[in-house]
Amino acid sequence: MTIFSKIIAGDIPAYKIAEDDQFFAFLDIFPLVEGHVLVVPKLEIDKFFDVPDDYLSRILVFSKPIAKAIEKAFPCNRVGLAVVGLEVPHAHLHLVPINGIDDLNFTRGKLKLSPEQLKAAQEKILANL
Amino acid sequence: MTIFSKIIAGDIPAYKIAEDDQFFAFLDIFPLVEGHVLVVPKLEIDKFFDVPDDYLSRILVFSKPIAKAIEKAFPCNRVGLAVVGLEVPHAHLHLVPINGIDDLNFTRGKLKLSPEQLKAAQEKILANL
Repeated sequence: MTIFSKIIAGDIPAYKIAEDDQFFAFLDIFPLVEGHVLVVPKLEIDKFFDVPDDYLSRILVFSKPIAKAIEKAFPCNRVGLAVVGLEVPHAHLHLVPINGIDDLNFTRGKLKLSPEQLKAAQEKILANL
Repeated sequence: MTIFSKIIAGDIPAYKIAEDDQFFAFLDIFPLVEGHVLVVPKLEIDKFFDVPDDYLSRILVFSKPIAKAIEKAFPCNRVGLAVVGLEVPHAHLHLVPINGIDDLNFTRGKLKLSPEQLKAAQEKILANL
């Protein structure tokens, strides 16, 4: 079981943002910037483009209201999107509020936020969803 | 008219990869790595998540065979995906063959490829599409 499947199953706690029958969205606990959310298909598939079409055709529509809520909750130019996938072998999409291209640069150091800061970020997004 | 609309209209030449009624895909001429492709909705909308759902629900399914062709044409761990959108006010998606996270780092210098190198990259992708 991947760490994301354990989060989806509730075996590992997460700062949940949204869920439906196909996807689970929660805060990245090592965010590039505050408000960084992961959207994960409920399928253990490593590569994003191996995810079946009925998931690929819904993931952006599922992500759209979350992206709009992030954009309202955190001052940013817009919400950027990335799929990298070199660390956890379970396809996932990053939603990141960006003000410059460096905010979507995965080579830079991640923020270390306290549980209180993460909880506050979750609540801010949920309040705008 | 955005530069992408001019490319779609054929007013500016491009190394075209694929097209349908909704999308146009072509080589980024300032690629992060060889094989870097842009997928552009045929709508002049600035922010990606303002693109209508009937486009958002098809863009990844349209991109999938292109990503698979890039992956075959260029040695890579997988094809990464990014939406940044801070430069051209016309929503677009980057498909980039990556071997490490720095290959999807938009802050690093772009490659300067000759027309011959770009043409060769286009042909390699098309041969695998």
